[in-house]
Amino acid sequence: MEERQISKAVIKRLPRYYRYLEEILNNGIERISSGELSSKMQVTASQIRQDLNNFGGFGQQGYGYNVKYLYDEIGKILGVHQIHPMIIIGGGNFGHALANYDFEKNGFVTKAIFDVRPELEGTFIRGIPVLMMNQLEDFISRETVEIAVLTLPKSQVAEAAQRLTRCGIKALWNFAHLDLDVPEDVVVENVHLVDSLMQLSYRISNSEEEQI
Amino acid sequence: MEERQISKAVIKRLPRYYRYLEEILNNGIERISSGELSSKMQVTASQIRQDLNNFGGFGQQGYGYNVKYLYDEIGKILGVHQIHPMIIIGGGNFGHALANYDFEKNGFVTKAIFDVRPELEGTFIRGIPVLMMNQLEDFISRETVEIAVLTLPKSQVAEAAQRLTRCGIKALWNFAHLDLDVPEDVVVENVHLVDSLMQLSYRISNSEEEQI
Repeated sequence: MEERQISKAVIKRLPRYYRYLEEILNNGIERISSGELSSKMQVTASQIRQDLNNFGGFGQQGYGYNVKYLYDEIGKILGVHQIHPMIIIGGGNFGHALANYDFEKNGFVTKAIFDVRPELEGTFIRGIPVLMMNQLEDFISRETVEIAVLTLPKSQVAEAAQRLTRCGIKALWNFAHLDLDVPEDVVVENVHLVDSLMQLSYRISNSEEEQI
Repeated sequence: MEERQISKAVIKRLPRYYRYLEEILNNGIERISSGELSSKMQVTASQIRQDLNNFGGFGQQGYGYNVKYLYDEIGKILGVHQIHPMIIIGGGNFGHALANYDFEKNGFVTKAIFDVRPELEGTFIRGIPVLMMNQLEDFISRETVEIAVLTLPKSQVAEAAQRLTRCGIKALWNFAHLDLDVPEDVVVENVHLVDSLMQLSYRISNSEEEQI
């Protein structure tokens, strides 16, 4: 596939395409027009054509998209056909919940959870070992780790991010409610829950203007 | 304050402004220029001026922004100075983690958690009662509830959303990995964790093109 510069907005929409295509595929549908996909996804058909054109000729005029092919190609673009080994930093409520989540299905495999509480040492969450923070550097030097998930309190997360990037970790999935200061070659994806709630409360008070 | 149509992109940035201004305020800083705010937030100064102009005259040329005033006004716009009563549907790992999160600070107060497992009946998470799903309609008719947080498995969430909107709930914070089909006057804010991870994996394989 040809390399192109793809806008962030398109990238943000790709996982949603992937999710819908999976559902359509599971329903045994082999071909779908941009019009049908449009009504399912509540995105305009022209938006869909435009987005998918970024990745070359998936569709044929008057014939629609090959669902399986499109699904696989978007999967490749998103990198979900590879294994992405992860570690979770922080075995509190959120770390625990994330360790229990079925991310493996899309290639995201959690190899260990790190915490500082000695009573958690030697325990397992869904078969995943809980290790101590002082084992972090050693673990990363021995094992392949691609993504570190940060579920630490705000006050501890900056130091943890620094330790991780010093060990060569290039991808952080950050749940702490602050923006991390990391080297340029490190990618950070934030899940800022409070920001999301604030957007909800804004939309509640302005819901008369809302469109999906 | 004058009513204006504000773009979604600006709304998405407001919680981040709010967060930075809180930090600046806590550091005892009373005035800040768009240039200083810009270097802290890694957004261009012209973007900041443009965003904040949406809400009228917060700044004065050559004098900067009054931090407290700007913080308060953005807080009002986001609706965080009001109480937003919430209920959490699903007392599993995620529901549990969310119940333990300090959202009250910004006005988001969880009043109850609903689950179907009888062994959870009568228990509390951080003082918040766990009620049974068959008490849902009755609870909502007696209490003021603004936001329902959905942390149910994918297979159960559509039905729960239907029950909630039938009871008049107008705001859903959805953690299930699907898009909800709700009446037009209901606002939904999604936290799709898998989508977020996929964006991260896309960015890992394309990180040479990255800019913050």
